[in-house]
Amino acid sequence: MSFAPVYLDWNATTPLDPQVREAMLPWLGAAEPIRFGNASSRHEYGRQARAAVDEARARVAAAVGAHATEVIFTSGGSEANNLFLKGAAACLKPGTVAVSAIEHPCVREPAKQLQRTGWTLKEIAVDAHGVIDAADWGATLQAKPALVSVMLANNETGVLQDIAALAAEARKPGAWFHTDAVQALGKAELDFRALGVNAMTLSAHKIGGPLGAGALVVDKRVELAPLIAGGGQERGLRSGTENVAAIVGFGVACERAVAHRETEAQRLALLRGEIETGLAALGATVFSRAAQRLPNTVFFAFGNIDGETLVGKLDRAGFACASGSACSSAQPEPSHTLLAMGVDPVVARGAVRVSLGRMTTADDVARFVATLSRVVEDLRKLASVAG
Amino acid sequence: MSFAPVYLDWNATTPLDPQVREAMLPWLGAAEPIRFGNASSRHEYGRQARAAVDEARARVAAAVGAHATEVIFTSGGSEANNLFLKGAAACLKPGTVAVSAIEHPCVREPAKQLQRTGWTLKEIAVDAHGVIDAADWGATLQAKPALVSVMLANNETGVLQDIAALAAEARKPGAWFHTDAVQALGKAELDFRALGVNAMTLSAHKIGGPLGAGALVVDKRVELAPLIAGGGQERGLRSGTENVAAIVGFGVACERAVAHRETEAQRLALLRGEIETGLAALGATVFSRAAQRLPNTVFFAFGNIDGETLVGKLDRAGFACASGSACSSAQPEPSHTLLAMGVDPVVARGAVRVSLGRMTTADDVARFVATLSRVVEDLRKLASVAG
Ligand SMILES: Cc1ncc(COP(=O)(O)O)c(C=O)c1O
Ligand SMILES: Cc1ncc(COP(=O)(O)O)c(C=O)c1O
Repeated sequence: MSFAPVYLDWNATTPLDPQVREAMLPWLGAAEPIRFGNASSRHEYGRQARAAVDEARARVAAAVGAHATEVIFTSGGSEANNLFLKGAAACLKPGTVAVSAIEHPCVREPAKQLQRTGWTLKEIAVDAHGVIDAADWGATLQAKPALVSVMLANNETGVLQDIAALAAEARKPGAWFHTDAVQALGKAELDFRALGVNAMTLSAHKIGGPLGAGALVVDKRVELAPLIAGGGQERGLRSGTENVAAIVGFGVACERAVAHRETEAQRLALLRGEIETGLAALGATVFSRAAQRLPNTVFFAFGNIDGETLVGKLDRAGFACASGSACSSAQPEPSHTLLAMGVDPVVARGAVRVSLGRMTTADDVARFVATLSRVVEDLRKLASVAG
Repeated sequence: MSFAPVYLDWNATTPLDPQVREAMLPWLGAAEPIRFGNASSRHEYGRQARAAVDEARARVAAAVGAHATEVIFTSGGSEANNLFLKGAAACLKPGTVAVSAIEHPCVREPAKQLQRTGWTLKEIAVDAHGVIDAADWGATLQAKPALVSVMLANNETGVLQDIAALAAEARKPGAWFHTDAVQALGKAELDFRALGVNAMTLSAHKIGGPLGAGALVVDKRVELAPLIAGGGQERGLRSGTENVAAIVGFGVACERAVAHRETEAQRLALLRGEIETGLAALGATVFSRAAQRLPNTVFFAFGNIDGETLVGKLDRAGFACASGSACSSAQPEPSHTLLAMGVDPVVARGAVRVSLGRMTTADDVARFVATLSRVVEDLRKLASVAG
């Protein structure tokens, strides 16, 4: 399978892994043995569906070092993040909820919604590299938050946080600590127990799995009210007929992502290195370069070149990348992650994200660097004429 | 495509319609032209995804006589019901929420959850046929509910309510009226405008579409807070990367379900008639037989035969049907629908649901009736020996 244009937006979503597809097709009636059924039904079809969901649950749990009983399947990462924040808040007296300033909107927005029900929102600052600011983290702990959410890997910069250390400190005075690991799964080491968090969000479509499946992994110390109440699926914490095909695909995707993680990380880090060499030659700023980052992600800007414009030119030249955060690029505002890092809004408007994945080749990258050089030089010529 | 065992549980979930599958496969990389992408991405992949979502939205809207701008895609019916109840309640001062006593748990449970935030819950009674009780409906209107939810077609009995009349009366004093039309779509006439409701829930997997897609159709008079907040998809009312494959399948499924509705309704009503003749000969009680019902559904019980036992025997004999409500049969309590109708709990424990669908044949039904007779006679012999 090869794609045209070249796909360099793997943090936004990924094509289905062929083995994931193979596992799913029977559940879509597209391969033998044909399977379908409501996993709650008490007949042969239902039992097969239930067995498939159970097997997938074991796979997801194994991939992240959790127990199968700790996995709550959801429709995706956004739902899982909302479930944690709203579901946990509903079981507590209103207090302080602390989330980092660089969280994905699907953590930031539910945290903001909690203010309407009496919660105080503390945004945890990051430093110029996009890492949690030590002083502001100290201030956060002083505020004794009941709920804390800090993402493991940022979707734009790729910056990794030291979640194990943060969780240990936050949990001492009794906070429930959650991490959004959507971008970390398959790209960074990920062990629920070793991280010592209470809850963790995963999403299938970022790792070669299908859209329509995600999970909140949550330990027994956390009490949750369901976001979607009803038939009582997922131990009463997420009702709705289970999306068997997507859940099956998610299980296989987790297994594959973890099995190939280390070799892929090395391979993609080298390819990203090629891009960063090209960017340096062109005089680009690479954000968070000094921080620990995901191996597949590079977020950069050129002075005086608008990010939207650059992405548009690259698109027409056959390369699909993102300006700002693809997940929320419905509103083309400068990246809140960069603003939180103290980047000048003018510079932030130039931001472009390139994210690599399983099917990215050395040839794709070489052609991308060549095209980027040409496009940037063209735009600079235009700007100097216009100026 | 033919299935063994014979599938007689179409109200629980349905196999994918072949044309739905065909439309979805490109989005799973399983047929040319291969498609994938995040519909929010500003490049070729993203634009194709967005166009596919828009086209599906137009199809769903057209199938139910709504505007495309009134369709909010969700992960399924349970989420859509929760979105209406919680999302609307969050925009109102706490008041009375009225839901019928026979609603699906994914309406009943969120309505109960609202009590924690100061709402008063009024359960609207039904009569012995499972139809909204006129006197209790009058009492409901007196209570001036702010939110009302009454299902169009019941998943167990198949009973249809006169939603147009109820909505007209409830909306006069200012209620926002919602109907769960999950079981009605494709089986009964369904027109958002003609019903005069403010909001309506749909689900793809009940009509030959995939698991993972549903919709809340909602008019502009209703204000909603999102259940899943974040990236701002679905006009800010349902965040999360759009499940393009499932949404595309939902669109085609709606079109097909509506196109074949009348011929299928006639065909299935005849087949159900065969079953009901068989049931009468065996001395079964058919619930709600005197009410307006979906053409594909029959809910019945034999005195002294446990529903679970009968379903188990039928399963082993090659016929998949449901005892109580398959959607919530995790807890084998007697059907709350039957209890609300005043059916004796002992009789209710005998309840079995048979629901027919597009692939049900006259031969399936003839064999089912013959097998049911044999199984029931065997169980009666056993009972008389034991007694
Ligand atoms: C860090 C992060 N969290 C959460 C999400 C939301 O996940 P989903 O698209 O599965 O809802 C995304 C991407 O959209 C993400 O990058
Ligand atoms: C009447 C009714 N409403 C809602 C639902 C829930 O829909 P979904 O399975 O798509 O969440 C069902 C079936 O499960 C149903 O029968």
